[in-house]
Amino acid sequence: MSLYLRCLGELESAGRETVSSKELAGKFSISSALVRRDLGLFGAFGKAGVGYEVKSLKDALMSKLGLKRAWKVAIVGAGRLGLALARHKGLTQSKFKIVAIFDKAPERTIAKRDSGFEVLHVADLPRTVKERGVELGIIAVPGANAQEAADTIVRAGIRGILNFAPTHIDVPHGVFVHHVDFTIYLENLAYYVNEASHQKGHSVDRGGRD
Amino acid sequence: MSLYLRCLGELESAGRETVSSKELAGKFSISSALVRRDLGLFGAFGKAGVGYEVKSLKDALMSKLGLKRAWKVAIVGAGRLGLALARHKGLTQSKFKIVAIFDKAPERTIAKRDSGFEVLHVADLPRTVKERGVELGIIAVPGANAQEAADTIVRAGIRGILNFAPTHIDVPHGVFVHHVDFTIYLENLAYYVNEASHQKGHSVDRGGRD
Repeated sequence: MSLYLRCLGELESAGRETVSSKELAGKFSISSALVRRDLGLFGAFGKAGVGYEVKSLKDALMSKLGLKRAWKVAIVGAGRLGLALARHKGLTQSKFKIVAIFDKAPERTIAKRDSGFEVLHVADLPRTVKERGVELGIIAVPGANAQEAADTIVRAGIRGILNFAPTHIDVPHGVFVHHVDFTIYLENLAYYVNEASHQKGHSVDRGGRD
Repeated sequence: MSLYLRCLGELESAGRETVSSKELAGKFSISSALVRRDLGLFGAFGKAGVGYEVKSLKDALMSKLGLKRAWKVAIVGAGRLGLALARHKGLTQSKFKIVAIFDKAPERTIAKRDSGFEVLHVADLPRTVKERGVELGIIAVPGANAQEAADTIVRAGIRGILNFAPTHIDVPHGVFVHHVDFTIYLENLAYYVNEASHQKGHSVDRGGRD
């Protein structure tokens, strides 16, 4: 759905008012029937010969994805990764606002050398989450500390966790985790590069659309 | 395929010798017919009543994914993100070996304050890629520099790029890009959290399996 949303944003910027399921299908290399089914799940139905209205479809998706408003996010772990994420333009220019960064040893982080990061002690997490209305958590601690960080986040009432630690974390039913596993992405790339080198002249271009 | 591989690794560690398509299907919430089709694409066929041999299936997948050997990886961008990736246990303990890190201004990176990173000037990239046999590249520069980094990587003969910059990059046919877009992961989490809060008692547990 996020990918549809991105695509619709691009079409809107380009001044397009309508788009057919066939055109959307082409962009994602899937069938137009699947596009119609996907969008139908969101109550969006195109008109025969016209397609979908870009603006209202985008609106419907954003509403369904809960993106009509900002989401407050906390990061646990103020090492290089946590601080890099806090400053990453992909996040700072999005609906997702980093409103707090926690660490077990805030006095030892490199944050102070640079501008603007107030790193809080992880003991302050429950109170801060409540006070600032944090809804999503990012785990950016070493693997050995990831479960502990997850437990703290879950106890504070957060229901969505993005896990950058290289380890599986257990969470109770009703809490959602997305594990960002860098090796999976590299494995996928390795697979394509490997295939292409064995099938000269028959490589699939996945450029940017992966 | 990477997910099957992970799952098989876990089964192997647990001492399991065989696994049924039904069990694999259950782990990924897909149909066992789809599991059989997926694995069939890799020339792996289970036996009725027995299933797949864990070890030989894992072997076949690894071979197909090109993971029977190490892959050499270079990072472009020695800011916080690049250095965090270079040290991330998820990578350092994998088949993917970071053999070089480049920056436009190696003398200005924070690497020197810490141990062990030799950051090279990006002008040395083509030569180093050749000398060290680099096959995959990671882009960890700001969005404004991402295309330039991609062009340099591609010109050096690298065919697979993991892009952490918050921008689309254009690459020639035959070069594979995976864009790591943090906001997509957060959008997915926001969607589930949003849905769950509207459907009390009917939340889907995606814990770790997302």
